[in-house]
Amino acid sequence: MKTLNIGIIGAGRIGMQHADNLLRHSQVKLKAVSDIQPEAIREWSKSVNISTITTDSGQLLQDPQIDAIFICSSTDTHVDFIIEAAKAGKHIFCEKPISFDLRKTEQALEIVKRSGIKMQVGFNRRFDHNFMKVRRLIEEGAIGKPHIVKLISRDPSPPSYDYIKVSGGLLFDMAIHDFDMARFLSGSEVEEVFVKGAVLVDPKIGELGDIDTAVTTLKFKDGTLGIIENSRLAAYGYDQRVEVFGSAGTANTYNDTESTAEWSTAKGVFREKPKHFFLERYQQSYVREVDTFIDCVLNDKPVPVDGYDAYMAEVIAAAAKKSLIDNAPVLIEDIRKLLPSV
Amino acid sequence: MKTLNIGIIGAGRIGMQHADNLLRHSQVKLKAVSDIQPEAIREWSKSVNISTITTDSGQLLQDPQIDAIFICSSTDTHVDFIIEAAKAGKHIFCEKPISFDLRKTEQALEIVKRSGIKMQVGFNRRFDHNFMKVRRLIEEGAIGKPHIVKLISRDPSPPSYDYIKVSGGLLFDMAIHDFDMARFLSGSEVEEVFVKGAVLVDPKIGELGDIDTAVTTLKFKDGTLGIIENSRLAAYGYDQRVEVFGSAGTANTYNDTESTAEWSTAKGVFREKPKHFFLERYQQSYVREVDTFIDCVLNDKPVPVDGYDAYMAEVIAAAAKKSLIDNAPVLIEDIRKLLPSV
Amino acid sequence: MKTLNIGIIGAGRIGMQHADNLLRHSQVKLKAVSDIQPEAIREWSKSVNISTITTDSGQLLQDPQIDAIFICSSTDTHVDFIIEAAKAGKHIFCEKPISFDLRKTEQALEIVKRSGIKMQVGFNRRFDHNFMKVRRLIEEGAIGKPHIVKLISRDPSPPSYDYIKVSGGLLFDMAIHDFDMARFLSGSEVEEVFVKGAVLVDPKIGELGDIDTAVTTLKFKDGTLGIIENSRLAAYGYDQRVEVFGSAGTANTYNDTESTAEWSTAKGVFREKPKHFFLERYQQSYVREVDTFIDCVLNDKPVPVDGYDAYMAEVIAAAAKKSLIDNAPVLIEDIRKLLPSV
Amino acid sequence: MKTLNIGIIGAGRIGMQHADNLLRHSQVKLKAVSDIQPEAIREWSKSVNISTITTDSGQLLQDPQIDAIFICSSTDTHVDFIIEAAKAGKHIFCEKPISFDLRKTEQALEIVKRSGIKMQVGFNRRFDHNFMKVRRLIEEGAIGKPHIVKLISRDPSPPSYDYIKVSGGLLFDMAIHDFDMARFLSGSEVEEVFVKGAVLVDPKIGELGDIDTAVTTLKFKDGTLGIIENSRLAAYGYDQRVEVFGSAGTANTYNDTESTAEWSTAKGVFREKPKHFFLERYQQSYVREVDTFIDCVLNDKPVPVDGYDAYMAEVIAAAAKKSLIDNAPVLIEDIRKLLPSV
Repeated sequence: MKTLNIGIIGAGRIGMQHADNLLRHSQVKLKAVSDIQPEAIREWSKSVNISTITTDSGQLLQDPQIDAIFICSSTDTHVDFIIEAAKAGKHIFCEKPISFDLRKTEQALEIVKRSGIKMQVGFNRRFDHNFMKVRRLIEEGAIGKPHIVKLISRDPSPPSYDYIKVSGGLLFDMAIHDFDMARFLSGSEVEEVFVKGAVLVDPKIGELGDIDTAVTTLKFKDGTLGIIENSRLAAYGYDQRVEVFGSAGTANTYNDTESTAEWSTAKGVFREKPKHFFLERYQQSYVREVDTFIDCVLNDKPVPVDGYDAYMAEVIAAAAKKSLIDNAPVLIEDIRKLLPSV
Repeated sequence: MKTLNIGIIGAGRIGMQHADNLLRHSQVKLKAVSDIQPEAIREWSKSVNISTITTDSGQLLQDPQIDAIFICSSTDTHVDFIIEAAKAGKHIFCEKPISFDLRKTEQALEIVKRSGIKMQVGFNRRFDHNFMKVRRLIEEGAIGKPHIVKLISRDPSPPSYDYIKVSGGLLFDMAIHDFDMARFLSGSEVEEVFVKGAVLVDPKIGELGDIDTAVTTLKFKDGTLGIIENSRLAAYGYDQRVEVFGSAGTANTYNDTESTAEWSTAKGVFREKPKHFFLERYQQSYVREVDTFIDCVLNDKPVPVDGYDAYMAEVIAAAAKKSLIDNAPVLIEDIRKLLPSV
Repeated sequence: MKTLNIGIIGAGRIGMQHADNLLRHSQVKLKAVSDIQPEAIREWSKSVNISTITTDSGQLLQDPQIDAIFICSSTDTHVDFIIEAAKAGKHIFCEKPISFDLRKTEQALEIVKRSGIKMQVGFNRRFDHNFMKVRRLIEEGAIGKPHIVKLISRDPSPPSYDYIKVSGGLLFDMAIHDFDMARFLSGSEVEEVFVKGAVLVDPKIGELGDIDTAVTTLKFKDGTLGIIENSRLAAYGYDQRVEVFGSAGTANTYNDTESTAEWSTAKGVFREKPKHFFLERYQQSYVREVDTFIDCVLNDKPVPVDGYDAYMAEVIAAAAKKSLIDNAPVLIEDIRKLLPSV
Repeated sequence: MKTLNIGIIGAGRIGMQHADNLLRHSQVKLKAVSDIQPEAIREWSKSVNISTITTDSGQLLQDPQIDAIFICSSTDTHVDFIIEAAKAGKHIFCEKPISFDLRKTEQALEIVKRSGIKMQVGFNRRFDHNFMKVRRLIEEGAIGKPHIVKLISRDPSPPSYDYIKVSGGLLFDMAIHDFDMARFLSGSEVEEVFVKGAVLVDPKIGELGDIDTAVTTLKFKDGTLGIIENSRLAAYGYDQRVEVFGSAGTANTYNDTESTAEWSTAKGVFREKPKHFFLERYQQSYVREVDTFIDCVLNDKPVPVDGYDAYMAEVIAAAAKKSLIDNAPVLIEDIRKLLPSV
């Protein structure tokens, strides 16, 4: 049985999630992890038998035994690591977004393309059981041609102000998942975007130049319309639902819960709240996306979500930001015109 | 016990619905019905003991025994009947919209105001058990301050081409209910509207100058955002749902069904489709709106949905139409500026 | 259009429910109501234009203009009124049960049979939209041959001690509806019954010789099994659900609620409690059963739930009571052997 | 970090499930597996690095390095392996039931007790997220004192005739899980049991002396009533639901599904069928029961489901079988009288 030697750059929350899933994979050897604060994972690394823990990501990128690199560090480092890894001939799994700077994303993609390695991007929600089911229903024709694609994406609580300052804002750090999901579900490319944003959750978020609530209208090339709703604060927890309405029907998903229990008392009828946050809600999707990447590398298949998908989500986010500022619909084409073609 | 003598102008589908509900009311005497085709209701009128059936609406408007008039004729006749009835000192229940011409609506309202009579407008959905429950949850503070008000409004099948030609189009004949519901649920006035429309159901609808699918984004004066979805064709039936998402939670309603049955076979797990169309779905709301009107007249209470509500829904519809044409957000204020104030 | 003149004996809660539904029927004239306390309804009778209000039920039974009698008085009076009405050639709608004494029920049925009049019995739940849907699914073969018929029947609160003393107990006053529903849904006759009862809600109910909680197992002649659950107290309200599990699937019904709203807050996810009690929950079924009776009388159709159905439910209740006392399964045949055949 | 060396006896479906979960546990070393047909797992054992694969279970039982034994072989071998393992001082995880012969179960428990080792029994459903939630609601007092405990347990298809011949029949191989769940949820001991069985699925099952459909009524020592429904064939899949109805409310669970999707078309409204069978439905519970066992052994805690629980489920099954044959309720005490006390 073929196995893959893997190194992880960045051992934060998402890096550790991938580490866990890689450790359970029978065809993977997790060989090395680099992080700027390696002390936090020193003990853990021993318990799970990882030989190399380092602050020096270069050590991983130059290790000839390592076949693939997971890039889980902060967004501003992604492009450099992609370029280095690609040049070293290593396959890449990179967290989203690749960059806030579309030109840099394009440069990275160019080098990935030339090097012939595989690069999968961390749009894990494409591997979610609920959203996959909706996509399958569409592909089977159960609901006909999509007319309206709708996404609800609300977080249980806002991130820290420090995060908001560097994250690129709601449209780049949060809605970017939804821009990708809209493309995935509709099976079409976005043509135009209009964003109405508001600061309703916390005025300080507004002072930092961001919004905390947004309603985005999309128009796709095949005529489908789209609606994305984002909020930084859903008091009842992480709300992640989609609906695709089509010519022959509609498909809705509901939130996942810890149990199916429903209980009734003199006070009312109760159900469980949604699963807490992304690590709980999307746990299975992280397993599937990693399994898929391993399978694609080992068996030389095309990855199902690649650099182009990352790029397009970033383009839509840029258009969305412009629309928010201009209070006007923005054509995707007008954003891409500013850029060299990919 | 006080009773009210009532006359109905227009015995179409909605006029007959009101007739049925008035006949069952213990404090009402349905005295007369006028229609341009009175033959259709001649036999029915005998069975339910209505003395006057006529083509001459003037006979009703001049009958000193009649206390209140239900105006259920075609939209283009509403204003004239309102003015006549108001001048004759009769209370009015008028179907929506009052007029496609905002200036005429304003004239009618002016005369209603001066005459001191009561006029309730047929936004029956305000009396729907599901939407009332959501409004009550908001009023009780259960979900905090509204952040996003969402309405799904999809018909089971498109109206005839003949209807589309004279109806004012999707935004005037269909979405107008939703514009009113948005005001009702949010408890705030609309400030700006942006419409993205499409012809996805039937190209002939496009050829007639209308759209069949629309996504409308609203911004309210208090900052709340709104989303209205309209489609002329939901293959699975009449889809009427709302969600209000607020600072402390969210409230969703689902479609009403003929039964709560769920059945499971080798082929899948099934539930009932939504109730067929508005007469079935909103049956109870028609009873409640008529009961409310009777109560307001008999006991001299203010009607809960009046001419101003009708006017505001028409203003939003006009703004929506302009937004659709201009592909740009439109301020309500800019529409009202064109008009004398009400 | 033919019409029916009707008299009601007994103007308690259920008598008044029928009165309301009869008053709304276009082919009915509610002519007279008798009650032992007529003062309570004197004013109401004027408002709805009923000429005769009396303490003398004989006045109704002898009135040649009255075509049909609704017997809504206390159970101990049913048989005498049935016999009188049948002899007077009047059609009968009688509330359930006919009698606690099976021999008397048989006598009444014998006279009804001989007189050639129609008698419908008040098992209104057969006209409930949810249970009708399940029956229809069975008839359409959607779930195959029934294997297990299950009924949940829980009241929101126990009746008064005075009522329990004369009601015949939980098995006769409450479960009797479920015994009928079991026959209706299964489409088969009960062969054997086993009851496990308990006093868990209120020890005083036990002191009065009754139980407040019961689990009944049925065996039907065609092999189907049945389960009936009864409780005098469901803290969350009136719980009325059924499930029929068959060779090709299963069908469940859920409780009706005032609205479909679901709301989510930091405290949890909430839905509406069941509709309060039988008048609210079964409102539509009362309308349908009366409409059906009127239709059967006016158009000479067989009534869908007749004296034999009442009798069989009483026989099952008697068997159930014996099973409870003996702590052993009881054959229906062994109860009927004690009786002349019907 | 302490670790545990484990050997598995029996590498069938359930043995392999445990193997997978043990392999993923960071504090476990799966050292050896014995099976009567070891060829089937030879390749797998290499890929996951298990050194010992053998037909000789004795090799495991005598290996001084092995701390704990998982007994996953056929039921008739359980008692001997338990005795051997206990005498060798090894902790035991044993699949249910321990034996069809209550005296042998008692002997095994006696030796386990004397040896001082820990023995957990494979009632994995106690670790199911849905049933745990219901138990937690009861413990928190959310639904008050239980009045009725209900279990639905229906398989997607009957087992092979060969299995039925040796399994002990529906009451021993299938309902035994439910007997344990009834004790777990109610928190009380069963006092009396009454079973009504039927052959409705397949007459051949009857010819083999078994039933395929059963309704069991339980009475608990604290007065609670219980209902268990079993069927060998649910056309729509594995149906595993519970309800506990109590003095202050009720708690229901629904089936787990692959996704939360609901889709609506002209043909109806659809949801996913239940997860296929026990390996899919109870996947998480197998992980939790193994994690719990490891934790109890490593940290010297009492196991939450032990030999006494296995014994009591077997006693109830024996009483149930007697009830089925006698068509009469059977006291648990009368079964235990026949036995030496445990």
